[in-house]
Amino acid sequence: MSKSLTAPLNIAMAQCNFHVGDIPGNTAKAIEAAQQAAAEGADLIVFSELALTGYPPEDLLMRPSLELRIAAALKEIAAVSHRIAVAIGYPVKRDNALFNCAGVWSKGECLGEYAKQELPNYQVFDEKRYFSAGQEACVVDLDGVKLGLTVCEDVWFDAPVSQTVEAGADLILNLNASPFHSGKQKERIELIKKHVSQHGVPLLYVNQVGGQDELVFDGSSFAVGVDSECVLQMASWKEDQAYLVYEDGQLRPQSASREAREDGLASLYNALVLGVRDYVNKNRFPGVVLGLSGGIDSALTLAVAVDALGPERVRAVMMPFTYTSGMSKEDAALQAEAMGVQYQSVSIEPMYKEFMSALAPDFEGLKVDTTEENLQSRCRGVLLMALSNKTGYMVLTTGNKSEMAVGYATLYGDMAGGYGALKDVYKTKVFALAEYRNTISPVIPQRVIDRPPSAELAPDQVDEDSLPAYPVLDDILERYIEQDESAEQIIAAGHERDDVMRVIRLVDVNEYKRRQASIGVRVTRRGFGRDRRYPVTNGWKAGI
Amino acid sequence: MSKSLTAPLNIAMAQCNFHVGDIPGNTAKAIEAAQQAAAEGADLIVFSELALTGYPPEDLLMRPSLELRIAAALKEIAAVSHRIAVAIGYPVKRDNALFNCAGVWSKGECLGEYAKQELPNYQVFDEKRYFSAGQEACVVDLDGVKLGLTVCEDVWFDAPVSQTVEAGADLILNLNASPFHSGKQKERIELIKKHVSQHGVPLLYVNQVGGQDELVFDGSSFAVGVDSECVLQMASWKEDQAYLVYEDGQLRPQSASREAREDGLASLYNALVLGVRDYVNKNRFPGVVLGLSGGIDSALTLAVAVDALGPERVRAVMMPFTYTSGMSKEDAALQAEAMGVQYQSVSIEPMYKEFMSALAPDFEGLKVDTTEENLQSRCRGVLLMALSNKTGYMVLTTGNKSEMAVGYATLYGDMAGGYGALKDVYKTKVFALAEYRNTISPVIPQRVIDRPPSAELAPDQVDEDSLPAYPVLDDILERYIEQDESAEQIIAAGHERDDVMRVIRLVDVNEYKRRQASIGVRVTRRGFGRDRRYPVTNGWKAGI
Repeated sequence: MSKSLTAPLNIAMAQCNFHVGDIPGNTAKAIEAAQQAAAEGADLIVFSELALTGYPPEDLLMRPSLELRIAAALKEIAAVSHRIAVAIGYPVKRDNALFNCAGVWSKGECLGEYAKQELPNYQVFDEKRYFSAGQEACVVDLDGVKLGLTVCEDVWFDAPVSQTVEAGADLILNLNASPFHSGKQKERIELIKKHVSQHGVPLLYVNQVGGQDELVFDGSSFAVGVDSECVLQMASWKEDQAYLVYEDGQLRPQSASREAREDGLASLYNALVLGVRDYVNKNRFPGVVLGLSGGIDSALTLAVAVDALGPERVRAVMMPFTYTSGMSKEDAALQAEAMGVQYQSVSIEPMYKEFMSALAPDFEGLKVDTTEENLQSRCRGVLLMALSNKTGYMVLTTGNKSEMAVGYATLYGDMAGGYGALKDVYKTKVFALAEYRNTISPVIPQRVIDRPPSAELAPDQVDEDSLPAYPVLDDILERYIEQDESAEQIIAAGHERDDVMRVIRLVDVNEYKRRQASIGVRVTRRGFGRDRRYPVTNGWKAGI
Repeated sequence: MSKSLTAPLNIAMAQCNFHVGDIPGNTAKAIEAAQQAAAEGADLIVFSELALTGYPPEDLLMRPSLELRIAAALKEIAAVSHRIAVAIGYPVKRDNALFNCAGVWSKGECLGEYAKQELPNYQVFDEKRYFSAGQEACVVDLDGVKLGLTVCEDVWFDAPVSQTVEAGADLILNLNASPFHSGKQKERIELIKKHVSQHGVPLLYVNQVGGQDELVFDGSSFAVGVDSECVLQMASWKEDQAYLVYEDGQLRPQSASREAREDGLASLYNALVLGVRDYVNKNRFPGVVLGLSGGIDSALTLAVAVDALGPERVRAVMMPFTYTSGMSKEDAALQAEAMGVQYQSVSIEPMYKEFMSALAPDFEGLKVDTTEENLQSRCRGVLLMALSNKTGYMVLTTGNKSEMAVGYATLYGDMAGGYGALKDVYKTKVFALAEYRNTISPVIPQRVIDRPPSAELAPDQVDEDSLPAYPVLDDILERYIEQDESAEQIIAAGHERDDVMRVIRLVDVNEYKRRQASIGVRVTRRGFGRDRRYPVTNGWKAGI
């Protein structure tokens, strides 16, 4: 393929952590990045999808002042574009329809605005709720280099890329807001290499970074040169800015590649840390408080919280009762000390007794059941919320995905809180992450990892008395929830019919609990947030 | 327009209350209705949209066994179609894409399946998440009468109706799952009359009835004859079956029209009752328990609950504290007696004191704030949940839309519970509904309606100390939430700038509370459920 011979184009890739809704703040951040890039000699800076609004802006896209706010932001982008050309994502209204656009601005003018053609409307995505689909390629000429614009999902299909190449692109810019899930970075790179090798046109993949409610964006932006090699890899889990030169069809990196994230426990752990950090900081909480039970979920949650916020912003509270073992009390205190957080112990015995005494006339003659267990859990929830209300510290919930799935949690008890670090992490992965975290520094007492999990809400209680062993449970759950397998398919994979039917039933009937659960970090292809929209009132029965 | 002269076609319109997900149960219900219609001499029975799955089935549409289950159901529909032709809604998979279809079955065969063309993907609707859009009209010949098929949203556009007429329809069947909101029935009838008067083809509008999570379907099915008059009106708020004859282009009713719902307080009240009844019954709760405070929200909620379920399935609990007035205690007891429900009083004083004493070291030197108020509310929540857990009775929440909007409610306190009758009812409407309910029979003490609202969580507290007067608050809220007006538009409408900015800010920052609120009946064009998808982490500031 012959390329026009033009002067080298110095390009900056800007991987920013934007704040959804804060258009003035995001614009200021973009302009600062642009000015820095200009000072470094760049001719063009490329940002991520919907950078000005942050992603996903959800129903903020329907606010009547959106256009005015974007217009004000673009006035500033136009101004800075006298120093450096800017490719950036923002929503555009045309003929009463809204488009998800990538615009290129230079010398105070818009050279072109591309409207995203492939609008994801599955999993967590609702783009067809907001946007109309663009119909055509957009290639702009910047100092003789023809830049083809694409937005995120477009590159997961052939047509928008082919169109862009046919329209004469020398270089394709792909503006993304691509959330993390395990295994995704490999898919992204393979996909982009395939396009490049098919069309012989290099591509810059620019992703945003940061947490937004349940979503975590890992960044991990990269560039693929005409020989289908990744010529530049940007950082994961943090903001980054990198430089390269486009000249005569070739991309030459000017920045050293950062270490790419691996798809393993380290990535998963980093996603949890970033999710918690950004939720707490973007919502301006001074810190977090959590119940430390001596069990593994709260132990791992504490480690994540401290790694996210530092020990001085984290408080841990042990709330013992009759069934709390001495071992739990010791381990909680040990871990709190190892992590350097403020720690206290408050017994729930006195309030529990008063509730039981007030309820005695109603409970007379009725047998003890989970009511009493829930009551213990709710006394703890009330204590933590009181500390939260008084100090402004947000309560971090400690439940994991296995529990959320089968309803092994108490509404308004251990489920009380603003955000969950482990909400999308199965129990078996909780153990693995605890072991992983201890390889960095030993903060979780080994006994917490080794002992059989127990909610300690009844004498000598062990989780696996009422649930299948966690490896069995988690495999059934993963097949049912993430792979959408039917009961028969899961049984055919080797599980006991009774286990499968019981687990599926528990998942189905506990939708009402999940509907009132805190949001939390999403790390799989199907979390329990926007991804999974099941009715609460639901007559579906597992069977075929 | 000349019509083919054929034998009269006897038609039954079936307005059923289906159970989402229960395909075998829904099929059995449809077959029972069909057999009854056949016994009455009908040649054809027409059901609502997605009748076999119930509407909306949400992500159940992605279960791998959906096709198998629908195939089993259609085998039964085919069998009954030897007695009577059946027009019914169900999902159909073709070439790996799913369609929202209306099929006509006769003599064991499918005469045709129409795929919905206009897929709503706004407000509460997510149909583009599940379905591909159909591309063409479908007209089937039943005993010489050409039946044109349309599904719900199709008739809100011109193209699908025009296409169907052009394809030769003598009579249009419109299968609906159209949720209630105030004012909608008038819009529906005007719309259908417009189509009929434009095309000269009569139309049957068949809607489902019943509650499904936050949605309430009012039924109110109807038929419009070729002279654009409504020839048959079916019942609102309950199942109904009605008959008419199609002959030579004319529709002749064989059933008396029922009283159509009015768009006023009676309809709103009926929607609340049906929503509560179906949520409780379809989820098989034996009954409900609620906190009766002596205030108007819990008073109206109790009336709705009793009208929905009968007094023997409703328990009311007064949970007094220091700030509870004697008037509140008297009024709560009076109302409970008037409604004939089980009533008890449990003081929260002992547990409140124990919590405060356990928290004393942490609270020392800090001033009293909303923490103490929330603690009272949470003691009540814990008590109600304990009664709920022990008896199986679901806790009914009593919060209204004004409170949900500005966050004037306590998470895990008064917000604890499974379902909210008033969740989408502004406080000013709560007063109007209480007055309305008392015109049927006097169940709410007049003093409860007349006294200034107070949460009674602090000495001499009155809601309007911390909020604008409710008529002002509700008008601002309605403009901001339902009309999507900007701050400037609301100010231009005559509100104080300070009030507007404060209220909008409260709405925006309390998204985190709403995200954990119970679901509840939706009665406006924008409730706080699936309709309004705002980020929690949100840097948007009211201003322009």
